[in-house]
Amino acid sequence: MTKAWSPVLFERTEGSAPIVLVCEHASASIPEEFGDLGISHEVRESHVAWDIGALDVARQLSVLMDAPLVSCGVSRLLYDCNRPLSAPDCIPVKSEIFDIPGNVGLNDAQKRSRHRLIHEPFHTGVEALVHAHRDRSDHEVAIVTLHSFTPVYFGKKRDVEIGFLHHGNTSLSLAAQRIEEQRGRYKTALNQPYDASDGVTYSLAKHADAQGLHSTMVEIRNDLVDTPSKARLVAKHLADTLLQAVAELAPMTRAAS
Amino acid sequence: MTKAWSPVLFERTEGSAPIVLVCEHASASIPEEFGDLGISHEVRESHVAWDIGALDVARQLSVLMDAPLVSCGVSRLLYDCNRPLSAPDCIPVKSEIFDIPGNVGLNDAQKRSRHRLIHEPFHTGVEALVHAHRDRSDHEVAIVTLHSFTPVYFGKKRDVEIGFLHHGNTSLSLAAQRIEEQRGRYKTALNQPYDASDGVTYSLAKHADAQGLHSTMVEIRNDLVDTPSKARLVAKHLADTLLQAVAELAPMTRAAS
Repeated sequence: MTKAWSPVLFERTEGSAPIVLVCEHASASIPEEFGDLGISHEVRESHVAWDIGALDVARQLSVLMDAPLVSCGVSRLLYDCNRPLSAPDCIPVKSEIFDIPGNVGLNDAQKRSRHRLIHEPFHTGVEALVHAHRDRSDHEVAIVTLHSFTPVYFGKKRDVEIGFLHHGNTSLSLAAQRIEEQRGRYKTALNQPYDASDGVTYSLAKHADAQGLHSTMVEIRNDLVDTPSKARLVAKHLADTLLQAVAELAPMTRAAS
Repeated sequence: MTKAWSPVLFERTEGSAPIVLVCEHASASIPEEFGDLGISHEVRESHVAWDIGALDVARQLSVLMDAPLVSCGVSRLLYDCNRPLSAPDCIPVKSEIFDIPGNVGLNDAQKRSRHRLIHEPFHTGVEALVHAHRDRSDHEVAIVTLHSFTPVYFGKKRDVEIGFLHHGNTSLSLAAQRIEEQRGRYKTALNQPYDASDGVTYSLAKHADAQGLHSTMVEIRNDLVDTPSKARLVAKHLADTLLQAVAELAPMTRAAS
C-alpha cells in the first residue's frame, strides 16, 4: 500500500479572524511515487525541501487569531506553489547549492503534470478558502503567507530576523513593519531577505492584489522557529502585530464581488 | 490544535493502468469546525456518512492494477462530491431515514462555502489526475468510480451484489456486466440499485462523457466489503473484470486534447 497524499490541507475553515493564512512551503513530504529526486536524506530534511517552522508558526497563528489556514502537503521540490508554471524555478533543478537530479530534463508534459497535481488543487483551495471567508463575513479579509529562510545562504550570514514582503499593495507590510519597529523585539525589515523582483510574491499577486485584498508575506529566519516551542513564541508575538496592522488599515470596505 | 483535513487525496499518481480510480464517498470524516451536524455517533459511522468499504476496494484496485486513485477526504454529509451545487441533495438534510439537523436551513452563502471548500478542490484534483495521466500515456484512460450501497434500504432487502452504472456512454458498463455474467461469481446487474436518472452519475458526466472517455460507476453491496480482507477479495475479482472490459472496448484512439 502506498500512502495517500494531498496538495491542499485546511484548518479552522470557519475561523473568524479578518485574516486568511497561507503556507505554501509547509511540508518536506515527497510521496513515494516521485522517488527520492536523487537527493540525500539530509537535503530532504533541509530548508531546500521546505520552510522549516513555517507551518508551526502558521498553525499557532491560526489558533491564536482564530484564522483559517490553508497549506500545501508536499515539498516545494516537486512543485513550488509560490511560483507559476512559467517560472524557471517552479520545479527547481538546483536549490541554493544543491542539485536536484530528479528534476533535471523533465519534458513539458511532466512539468504540466506536476503543476496540475499540486499547484492546481492547492490554489483552488486557497481561492475557495478566501471566497468562503468573504462570503460569510461582513468585514474584508487580508491574506498573510508564512515563510522561513535559512540563516546562512551561499555562505553568507543573514542578520534580519523577520521580513514583511509586499507585492503591489504595500499597506499591510508597511503597517506591520512600523508596529514591529515600535515593539523593538526582532530585527525586522521591509522586503528582506527577498522582494517581489525575486519572483517570490506570486501568491500575494494571485489571491490578494487580483481581488483587491490587503496582504503581506512574512519571512522568518528559521533558527527562530526550528522547534514547535520556538515557533509558538514567534507566533504569539506576530499575532498581535498582524491583528493590530490589519485594524490600522483604512477601513476595508467591501468591494462588490 | 485542530486537525488539518483535505477534500482531495491522491495515491499512485504515476500508475500505469489505463484506468483512473475515483472514490467520492471514501470518508466518514467530519472536521471539527463543522461540529457534529446534530447526528449520533452511530449515524456518523453508517452508510449515511460514507460508502463503507469503497475506499478499501479502490485502494486494493489501485495496487492490483497499478492505477492512480483520487478520493475525497471528508464525509458526503458535508458536501456530496458526486453532486453539482444545483442538486437538492448535494448537502443532504435527510439521508434515507435519518435527518441531518446541521444541514437544515443553510443559506446560499453557506452552501456555496461548502461547495467551494470541498467540491472545487476535489474535482480540480480529479481533472488534474485524469489530464496528467493522459499527458504521459500513449493510450486513453477510462474512469472507474467506486461506491457501495446498504443491503437494506427503507427496510427493503437488496439482492443485487454489484452494479455497473453508466451515464451517456454505456460501453464499459456493458462490457463489465457481460464479463461478470460469464464469470458467474456475483449477482451483478446493469444500473442497479440506481441509475443515471437518480442523479448519481455526475462524476462520470463531468470527467468522462465531457472528455470523450469511457467510464463506469461500480456499486458494491457493502456487506461484501465491510472489512479490509473482504474488500480485498472483491477487489481481486473486480481488477480482472475491469482490465478485461477496458481491453475489449474498441481501441481507444486518442482524441486531440
